[in-house]
Amino acid sequence: MYLENIQTPNDLKQLSFEQLNDLAVDIREALMHRLSKKGGHFGPNMGFVEATIALHYVFNSPIDKIVYDVSHQAYIHKMLTGRKDAYLYEEHFNDVSGYTNPEESIHDFFNIGHTSTSISLASGLAKARDLKGDHENVIAVIGDGSLSGGEALEGLNFAAELESNFIIVVNDNDMSIAENHGGLYHNLKQLRESNGTCECNLFKAMGLDYVYVAEGNDIEQLVNAFLKVKDAKLPVVVHLNTVKGKGYKIAEDNKENWHWCMPFDIETGLNKVSTQDENYGSLTGNYLMEKMKADEKVVAVVAAVPLVIGFTKERREEAGKQFVDVGIAEEHAIAMVSGIAKNGGKPVFATHSSFMQRTYDQISQDLCINSNPATLIVNTASVYGMNDITHLGIFDIPMMSNIPNLVYLAPTTCEEYFAMLDWSIEQDQYPVAIRVPCNGVIHSSLAVDQDYSNLNQYQVTLEGKDVAIIALGDFYQLGESLAKLLTERLNIVPTLVNPRYITGLDESLLDSLKENHSTVITLEDGILDGGFGEKIARYYGPSDMKVYNYGLKKQFIDRYNVSAVLEENHLTPELIINDIKV
Amino acid sequence: MYLENIQTPNDLKQLSFEQLNDLAVDIREALMHRLSKKGGHFGPNMGFVEATIALHYVFNSPIDKIVYDVSHQAYIHKMLTGRKDAYLYEEHFNDVSGYTNPEESIHDFFNIGHTSTSISLASGLAKARDLKGDHENVIAVIGDGSLSGGEALEGLNFAAELESNFIIVVNDNDMSIAENHGGLYHNLKQLRESNGTCECNLFKAMGLDYVYVAEGNDIEQLVNAFLKVKDAKLPVVVHLNTVKGKGYKIAEDNKENWHWCMPFDIETGLNKVSTQDENYGSLTGNYLMEKMKADEKVVAVVAAVPLVIGFTKERREEAGKQFVDVGIAEEHAIAMVSGIAKNGGKPVFATHSSFMQRTYDQISQDLCINSNPATLIVNTASVYGMNDITHLGIFDIPMMSNIPNLVYLAPTTCEEYFAMLDWSIEQDQYPVAIRVPCNGVIHSSLAVDQDYSNLNQYQVTLEGKDVAIIALGDFYQLGESLAKLLTERLNIVPTLVNPRYITGLDESLLDSLKENHSTVITLEDGILDGGFGEKIARYYGPSDMKVYNYGLKKQFIDRYNVSAVLEENHLTPELIINDIKV
Repeated sequence: MYLENIQTPNDLKQLSFEQLNDLAVDIREALMHRLSKKGGHFGPNMGFVEATIALHYVFNSPIDKIVYDVSHQAYIHKMLTGRKDAYLYEEHFNDVSGYTNPEESIHDFFNIGHTSTSISLASGLAKARDLKGDHENVIAVIGDGSLSGGEALEGLNFAAELESNFIIVVNDNDMSIAENHGGLYHNLKQLRESNGTCECNLFKAMGLDYVYVAEGNDIEQLVNAFLKVKDAKLPVVVHLNTVKGKGYKIAEDNKENWHWCMPFDIETGLNKVSTQDENYGSLTGNYLMEKMKADEKVVAVVAAVPLVIGFTKERREEAGKQFVDVGIAEEHAIAMVSGIAKNGGKPVFATHSSFMQRTYDQISQDLCINSNPATLIVNTASVYGMNDITHLGIFDIPMMSNIPNLVYLAPTTCEEYFAMLDWSIEQDQYPVAIRVPCNGVIHSSLAVDQDYSNLNQYQVTLEGKDVAIIALGDFYQLGESLAKLLTERLNIVPTLVNPRYITGLDESLLDSLKENHSTVITLEDGILDGGFGEKIARYYGPSDMKVYNYGLKKQFIDRYNVSAVLEENHLTPELIINDIKV
Repeated sequence: MYLENIQTPNDLKQLSFEQLNDLAVDIREALMHRLSKKGGHFGPNMGFVEATIALHYVFNSPIDKIVYDVSHQAYIHKMLTGRKDAYLYEEHFNDVSGYTNPEESIHDFFNIGHTSTSISLASGLAKARDLKGDHENVIAVIGDGSLSGGEALEGLNFAAELESNFIIVVNDNDMSIAENHGGLYHNLKQLRESNGTCECNLFKAMGLDYVYVAEGNDIEQLVNAFLKVKDAKLPVVVHLNTVKGKGYKIAEDNKENWHWCMPFDIETGLNKVSTQDENYGSLTGNYLMEKMKADEKVVAVVAAVPLVIGFTKERREEAGKQFVDVGIAEEHAIAMVSGIAKNGGKPVFATHSSFMQRTYDQISQDLCINSNPATLIVNTASVYGMNDITHLGIFDIPMMSNIPNLVYLAPTTCEEYFAMLDWSIEQDQYPVAIRVPCNGVIHSSLAVDQDYSNLNQYQVTLEGKDVAIIALGDFYQLGESLAKLLTERLNIVPTLVNPRYITGLDESLLDSLKENHSTVITLEDGILDGGFGEKIARYYGPSDMKVYNYGLKKQFIDRYNVSAVLEENHLTPELIINDIKV
């Protein structure tokens, strides 16, 4: 086995092409080993085995600097730069993150997890090199799917300005997470079909030199192409035609499902982990399909992550023109839904909280200044969401809730979520965002309001005294537990409030609490800085009310254990009761 | 005069080409009248007179829908859609805003002020049309300078997916605010030089049909081109070759200076309003030029607004490779400066607060997760900044200060600003942003710290008791006035604090204030929601301290009077003293 002997990239520079091909077999085996047991990004890595080998064969990392877009395809890079054990041995699986990570290795330059950033980040490395008078190669790797993102296109346009060595490797596997969307993909297809020769060429139109590699999973072709551009004096694109999921037929045949995988059985490709029967993705998909059938003006919009609202291939086809995947293009998506709402449509845009960050200005300028009644569904906005440092769901409240005109709602149960969603789609007054609960699908038989147009009216769900608990969104259940413990332990029946609205205060309720409460506790599933609780603290600032805000500390956390984070932030009933003085 | 008789676009449909040309003369005269007296966007409007006439001649607004990018070129559109008086008569100048505005007219679809949004916004109008089964034309107008922005490129890529009527008019005057930057501008040049015939074509590479108009200031050519694409069944780009500032030689000869103008003398082109001798733009430019001469690793980066740090054409040339204008591409800029810092450069990126919004995710992901020591200069972040609804400078504190790892500094004087800037450039630990004061260049002879690495250490500038005033950034002087009035009026000598750090609390100082203070007043030049004062209120929440947060209400305000806004928000010493109970 060759992989066992690779401690640094230098070790593979001694191998023949035949040996490099054997190494590729080893690498795929290691990938299958880890991915089938732990899960992770499958398709992007399996398709980029040969290219990574060729990159490290030709270039001299870390002097030459390789930056990977999203870096979800960097598993092979990690194997070849001293971290093979994390793929070969189960006891070392947790030694590495799923993305490039400068804390792990000098061969990694950035923590990267969002798409479309590699060209711009790498251009900075190149610019600094030029300022210092150094001469190393700087290489940005980017997938075709990521090319549609605004930052990538800005970077592609800027690259020509460097006028020095800058190599952009486009890993074109003809797929985003789902299929690609947008006109540029016609051009990539033309380029593939003409063996890179067609005159109309996006990359040349961006002022860049261009090299095409027809067999992007052939090490020798790749090495020759990289040798050709090594030490190039001008920016150049190397366009690789690769196969996503290469080497595992089940994945090659169903690329979308195998972009990312849970632990699976290698023989059958079946998941080893059973997934929850009921989840908000699928429930939302069902709901929206019904809405669409009843109203041709309802349209669901996603940016490359259709499954966040359950839009499987089947639902996408059934929805027809009432479903739009804009590809990786969140900025475009928000502006477009603003326009759809302006012209009488009923648009619903959904994405992960972490990706909503990519479109702050559009939410503010294109949507909220214009107060167009579009609906935004914010997924995995929670400490229970994705736990990679680049995909945290704990920052959306400060980011979004301080934008004027936006109504940001925090449902506490399944029934409340769908009541809010339905109200939002049918109203024509406000841009509305809904923070989907992330603590499982919790049902309630309590009646929920159908109309949320009386803004910022909080709901008192338990009338008590002395202490009021204002428990936001999916921390409402934590509020219930806290109320129970307060009663049991301190014989205090507190008031419990479901605030529902993240974006405003129910001043009359807050005033009325002053009558027979001395303490207010706020709970929110996100960072405290700039968040919901601080608004309550400000309101009560000049009064005698004691206010305790509970939520998360402002910090980037990586691959965390949820329970540990909750403990650290005193987000348990026991710890809260110990803190407060009543 | 024809313009006097144009009440609606229908009125111009009756005119001959000769009469339309006369109308163009009238319009330019009206533009000169308003612009020379009131100032505004000069070059974009003067160059787009004929195209606007032709658009309204061919299309049927508001059934057919025209969306203008930035909408700073929409003065002519306003004249032709019932708002001519605002250009003809000085007493009506204030009837209209400087941008499209749905509150003014049914011919305007969005409040727009940021660049690069028109394609995406208009695509939404088109998508809603298709959902409803309607058939009007939808037209997006965009300038060449705006094309480099991520949102525009995302929109351009998506447009082909509409597969229905969608007309993108590219107003190519070969200029951004300053000169264009990026590879795509080579392609636009090729297209202009080949009369639109060269095979390599960015727009075709984006999957779009394409029409070229060689004389973009010739009404007949324009009308013919628009007739050709009217009711087109597929998305099409109409590429116009126009002259920025057309019709006023002084502006044609110096396009950058005449993008926007102050009131001026028509004969000489000289400003009628004298500008402040000393301003932070020019001071920063001088400072950075000296830094660059001393250290080749220092590099100034801007996104199409070089003058915010005083980079005139002369300074740009002198700085050479140590100055980079990325064009309108803020996302790219932030990622690039992160890369520059990572590889040992000392980058300083500057833009207006309102445009910093365009790169929230890059500040978080590309820069702050990686903790690279780049410096961001945030300009016009203040109630004293730009007062158009689309350019407000009052939202940056909630947007930026809640991102982990960022050190956001608020200097109170010129000396403190440059001390902070110099520290930031030379340190290698933190991404740092600096909020440039916007209340004039205020000097102080007090010693300022040179080292800000002891994070979140506030500075007590006056030791008092009972009341503590924590006065942030350019509201520090308001804090001084308030302290003075408290002493005079209530005989209270308060403690005055310059917090300096927006991103963290000086907990030991806040604790010590509890000893002999009962009231804390915070002052900040921005909205309160998600801001600085709320963090103080949260900290003191469980204590007996009374906290009063002063700042602005969370709302979009338009063309406001600063004094009136300050009054409304009780941001004067008199009003504050009336509020508080001590």
